[in-house]
Amino acid sequence: MMKTSVAVLGATGYAGSELIRLIEGHPYFVIRHLAAHTQAGKKVSEVLPGISGPTSTMALTASDAPIPDDVELVFVALPHGAAARSVKMALDTGKKVVDLSADFRHRSAATYKTAYGLDHPCPELLKEAVFGLTEFSRADLINARLVANPGCYPSSTLLPLVPLLKAGVLDTNHIIVDSKSGASGAGRGEKTDLLYCEVNESVRAYGLPRHRHTWEMEEWAEGFSGEAVSVQFVPHILPMTRGMLSTLHLFGQSPEHWHAILEQAFMSEPFVRVLPEGSLPSTGGVNGSNRCDIGLVATGKNTAVVISCLDNLLKGAAGQAVQNANIMFGLDESSGLSAQAIWP
Amino acid sequence: MMKTSVAVLGATGYAGSELIRLIEGHPYFVIRHLAAHTQAGKKVSEVLPGISGPTSTMALTASDAPIPDDVELVFVALPHGAAARSVKMALDTGKKVVDLSADFRHRSAATYKTAYGLDHPCPELLKEAVFGLTEFSRADLINARLVANPGCYPSSTLLPLVPLLKAGVLDTNHIIVDSKSGASGAGRGEKTDLLYCEVNESVRAYGLPRHRHTWEMEEWAEGFSGEAVSVQFVPHILPMTRGMLSTLHLFGQSPEHWHAILEQAFMSEPFVRVLPEGSLPSTGGVNGSNRCDIGLVATGKNTAVVISCLDNLLKGAAGQAVQNANIMFGLDESSGLSAQAIWP
Amino acid sequence: MMKTSVAVLGATGYAGSELIRLIEGHPYFVIRHLAAHTQAGKKVSEVLPGISGPTSTMALTASDAPIPDDVELVFVALPHGAAARSVKMALDTGKKVVDLSADFRHRSAATYKTAYGLDHPCPELLKEAVFGLTEFSRADLINARLVANPGCYPSSTLLPLVPLLKAGVLDTNHIIVDSKSGASGAGRGEKTDLLYCEVNESVRAYGLPRHRHTWEMEEWAEGFSGEAVSVQFVPHILPMTRGMLSTLHLFGQSPEHWHAILEQAFMSEPFVRVLPEGSLPSTGGVNGSNRCDIGLVATGKNTAVVISCLDNLLKGAAGQAVQNANIMFGLDESSGLSAQAIWP
Amino acid sequence: MMKTSVAVLGATGYAGSELIRLIEGHPYFVIRHLAAHTQAGKKVSEVLPGISGPTSTMALTASDAPIPDDVELVFVALPHGAAARSVKMALDTGKKVVDLSADFRHRSAATYKTAYGLDHPCPELLKEAVFGLTEFSRADLINARLVANPGCYPSSTLLPLVPLLKAGVLDTNHIIVDSKSGASGAGRGEKTDLLYCEVNESVRAYGLPRHRHTWEMEEWAEGFSGEAVSVQFVPHILPMTRGMLSTLHLFGQSPEHWHAILEQAFMSEPFVRVLPEGSLPSTGGVNGSNRCDIGLVATGKNTAVVISCLDNLLKGAAGQAVQNANIMFGLDESSGLSAQAIWP
Repeated sequence: MMKTSVAVLGATGYAGSELIRLIEGHPYFVIRHLAAHTQAGKKVSEVLPGISGPTSTMALTASDAPIPDDVELVFVALPHGAAARSVKMALDTGKKVVDLSADFRHRSAATYKTAYGLDHPCPELLKEAVFGLTEFSRADLINARLVANPGCYPSSTLLPLVPLLKAGVLDTNHIIVDSKSGASGAGRGEKTDLLYCEVNESVRAYGLPRHRHTWEMEEWAEGFSGEAVSVQFVPHILPMTRGMLSTLHLFGQSPEHWHAILEQAFMSEPFVRVLPEGSLPSTGGVNGSNRCDIGLVATGKNTAVVISCLDNLLKGAAGQAVQNANIMFGLDESSGLSAQAIWP
Repeated sequence: MMKTSVAVLGATGYAGSELIRLIEGHPYFVIRHLAAHTQAGKKVSEVLPGISGPTSTMALTASDAPIPDDVELVFVALPHGAAARSVKMALDTGKKVVDLSADFRHRSAATYKTAYGLDHPCPELLKEAVFGLTEFSRADLINARLVANPGCYPSSTLLPLVPLLKAGVLDTNHIIVDSKSGASGAGRGEKTDLLYCEVNESVRAYGLPRHRHTWEMEEWAEGFSGEAVSVQFVPHILPMTRGMLSTLHLFGQSPEHWHAILEQAFMSEPFVRVLPEGSLPSTGGVNGSNRCDIGLVATGKNTAVVISCLDNLLKGAAGQAVQNANIMFGLDESSGLSAQAIWP
Repeated sequence: MMKTSVAVLGATGYAGSELIRLIEGHPYFVIRHLAAHTQAGKKVSEVLPGISGPTSTMALTASDAPIPDDVELVFVALPHGAAARSVKMALDTGKKVVDLSADFRHRSAATYKTAYGLDHPCPELLKEAVFGLTEFSRADLINARLVANPGCYPSSTLLPLVPLLKAGVLDTNHIIVDSKSGASGAGRGEKTDLLYCEVNESVRAYGLPRHRHTWEMEEWAEGFSGEAVSVQFVPHILPMTRGMLSTLHLFGQSPEHWHAILEQAFMSEPFVRVLPEGSLPSTGGVNGSNRCDIGLVATGKNTAVVISCLDNLLKGAAGQAVQNANIMFGLDESSGLSAQAIWP
Repeated sequence: MMKTSVAVLGATGYAGSELIRLIEGHPYFVIRHLAAHTQAGKKVSEVLPGISGPTSTMALTASDAPIPDDVELVFVALPHGAAARSVKMALDTGKKVVDLSADFRHRSAATYKTAYGLDHPCPELLKEAVFGLTEFSRADLINARLVANPGCYPSSTLLPLVPLLKAGVLDTNHIIVDSKSGASGAGRGEKTDLLYCEVNESVRAYGLPRHRHTWEMEEWAEGFSGEAVSVQFVPHILPMTRGMLSTLHLFGQSPEHWHAILEQAFMSEPFVRVLPEGSLPSTGGVNGSNRCDIGLVATGKNTAVVISCLDNLLKGAAGQAVQNANIMFGLDESSGLSAQAIWP
């Protein structure tokens, strides 16, 4: 089988580096073009220490350099705002796109403006974009030209939340999501508060009163379940590189039955594991894999706690992007992805 | 001024080591007796790498060895269950005691049994014990013989919660406390899940469905405020040595006024700092100090998030123990304690 | 192609877990039998959080349980001393063995006794065992029944040292090896000095005056190069889970030519990368991969510094074990292994 | 006793923050003036999360703002090159200065130019400056107007090296210093390679072929001992915030007698501890203290390893600066400093 040529725009961020690694190990994709605006002209190995072999000697081009004709699939890992124009250019030249930015995650330009403070650069594409939370989006992914890859917080939250919403058991006015993320989720920007000595041995909340991903969570909780919800969401940054754990504090009816709902929802999924009742996952158990681990404990007559863990750079970004691309290209959904963690 | 002679029982755990350090730097206390059951006979320096000088060459005695007559103050940092008997012995020989274990934190032996699964060894002392959350307990501390030093989770939670409860603004049926703790809170036991490689680069929840500190929180929330409450509490262990951050997800009336309530409550406190509205604390900003930093953000018409940070070994254990002891002995409450963090 | 059935003895240590992960992703090997003495009877998922899918539900057997007849390849990841007998049993039943312990790394039982303080349990097998530092052992690996997988420290040291020794440029009386290792190299034993809070935010040397791996380094430096050497070796444990960096402080003639010697030696190697002169590797750039990165800088007229980095659980243990097994079974040496790091 | 008014220039770096903390707890110094060029106009609490109380509300001035007349002591924690002019201005207005930069550590402007690539801004002051490695500099410190506070690497290296050099037992052509430093030693600059995700879970060497501190080590090894030496120095950055461990690989005569030489040299020192022979220090055992811990193990007939640990921000920077200032002002050398570590 001939390999599909792939481009990565924004190749030198943390998600970009993971995309390169995954494609390097992919049986049906091959890297053809790598762009990284601020590093244009450098070799990959000068910027990404983990990549070796032929790809490491490729030259990085500018983000807006023309993409070779034979490239059929473009992963866009650029900042929101900047991503949209690159997405449009790629689509206009007949390529399929998985966009890891936030630019096409909302169905309306108005919501996008509220959440990100920007007029949407290409509102005409919003309708077409498929929100690629793979487990809930497969039917639409098959024929998609443009997939909006979900944010890491919404991915970890929606996976357990949607089946419970569909089952109609939740008090939708008291959904609390308390998330803990490794620092790689904040990107590779040169900011004081991302320095080693500021992150290490410390934890802090951020993004209050309303983090941007809250809109995405609420929109797709309703989009996938039909239930309108209000989410109280507080993200925290932890002293670890990878990993995201979301703690869902839930109220509702008969929480002793909720574990079965989750088991039923994910029993055939290759990348979602529902732990036995009473078992709780850790991010260490999913890092390096494309897996999301979910645990649930009923804590009272009308309360339960759900813990959801994933690797923010894999199931929360590059891994899910490849999972979505596999479906777009008619491949086995697991191609080039591993469900085994790099542990410890 | 002559120094008061002090004993530490359970001197070689993490809280014990901090007690030694604080007493070493204390202007009015001096170490006279150090006990550590499993390490009896060894010198301090063989077990505690951070302690130097004359104290480091003292020999550790058994936990039940007689305490010298001239010792007036005993800090007990033994496991719950074991602590109670040592407390009683010390009281019976005329000494004052600060007990860092859970043994005297509850007013009834029944609650103790529910939370810890043990018949209380000395129920007759429960009435007398003063629950030493310093900021709310000063009047009782002055004449106390026995102080029950609060748990780290209740300390970080009750400090911001009690003033809001007193103000009557909270929906007491929807109080969610999501806490994040450094690994030192789990003690120095040789357990697989406390090994470096299991804790590092990972986060996990534990203690579900109902962590033992939940009873302590609920009992003293009511004890200090008069309001009965139900708390949904989920603790997490993080890849850091020290530091505790508790995120309180709160519902109620007019959250835009709550910041002023906290400011008012703590304006004269040397070891509680309420940050300006919109500012959020980090555990890095309190580690090494006896300070608790509190931030509050209103997140909706009837919701707010409170973030409370402290060093679990200081304001959450040894520091608060010394703060309480200072009051018991008529000293300046800040003696031997610092409000400045070791940062970074 | 039918897959070769594989057993792992000592499956629940850190190297054992990596062996399972690698075999799970291997195109020609399949797990058939997993043994772990202290955990016998449990399911894999109860002990190893990172493993999911069918293997995670396999039951662990005792280390000395009979290995199924159809198993052709046994990886032994037991402690030294205990490993030898299991190795012998496996060989006696016609299986090939890669032993990750130290039991067969020395050519004489006398050296083994000096280094490990034990009479060798099976000295008759020492002659046959092939010391599997893959890059220097290929010819012997093809027909090997028993491969002694090198220690992590010797692997990281010998890879750059041997070519320089062969070239005859080194002062063999002043070879200093200063190594830095992640804590996973110390294993999963429940020891106080491996607790998170003791390893975190600290670095220490250990194993002095002469760490056991010193004999292995000296024996195989001479074994592969013909030059007798004396190595001053000091290992350190660092606050990180994986990764090993060895700093070789070298004296000798014309160090400005040494970089070319290393480039020449490894130019065709899939898992050794010599960085451009002046570039220095980091362990972060090799973690999760089977790669060893080497940098060299001439620091004076007769001095140079060589830096060698590898993932102690991969090229330093499980990865090299699979690399060796691939050769033993006539497979592509890279099967099931990646040269790309999990970065960051 | 009236407190001496103090200024800190460069107050918002990591050493600057430690200076503020130490002065806050100092019985005879008081903060009067804080300057930080890029943060001028902000309040301390906006930039330094660890500082609370009245000092936290002080406004930061520009680095070149006039220093109040009543300030008698100025700590300069500015970058080299920039520091010299501020030092001169302070001296010219009659103040005493402890300079933590490299600007006055060398006795000749030529060495400074070789090491730092700059023409010295105030060469006329080089003669007068006292190199303040306290334990070896006391006599000169008493009357000093200007103290050059040593670098962290030279401090950790020279403390054990000088007594051995004085004893004449070392092979001065084979002195290897392999140092490991926490990331705080690299400062608070917004650089990609200081980001959390690049430092965490990784170790790397840097500064080759000849780190700037090598000149300082060699100059003062000879300056304090009279022996000319050649040092092969390789520093490494580790995934920890604080702490420095230097491993000295030494050759010479009768290493079995060297431990006694070190014990003799430091027996009365409040801030240097020589561990019992065979014991090895860790950085965790000195962090938060002004102590340097030293261990020595003879490893062969003519070789030994010395391990020296200190907190790079305390005995390696701000702590030693206060220790020196105490002597300059006729105070007890230990004023405001602790020999007890914050452990764990």
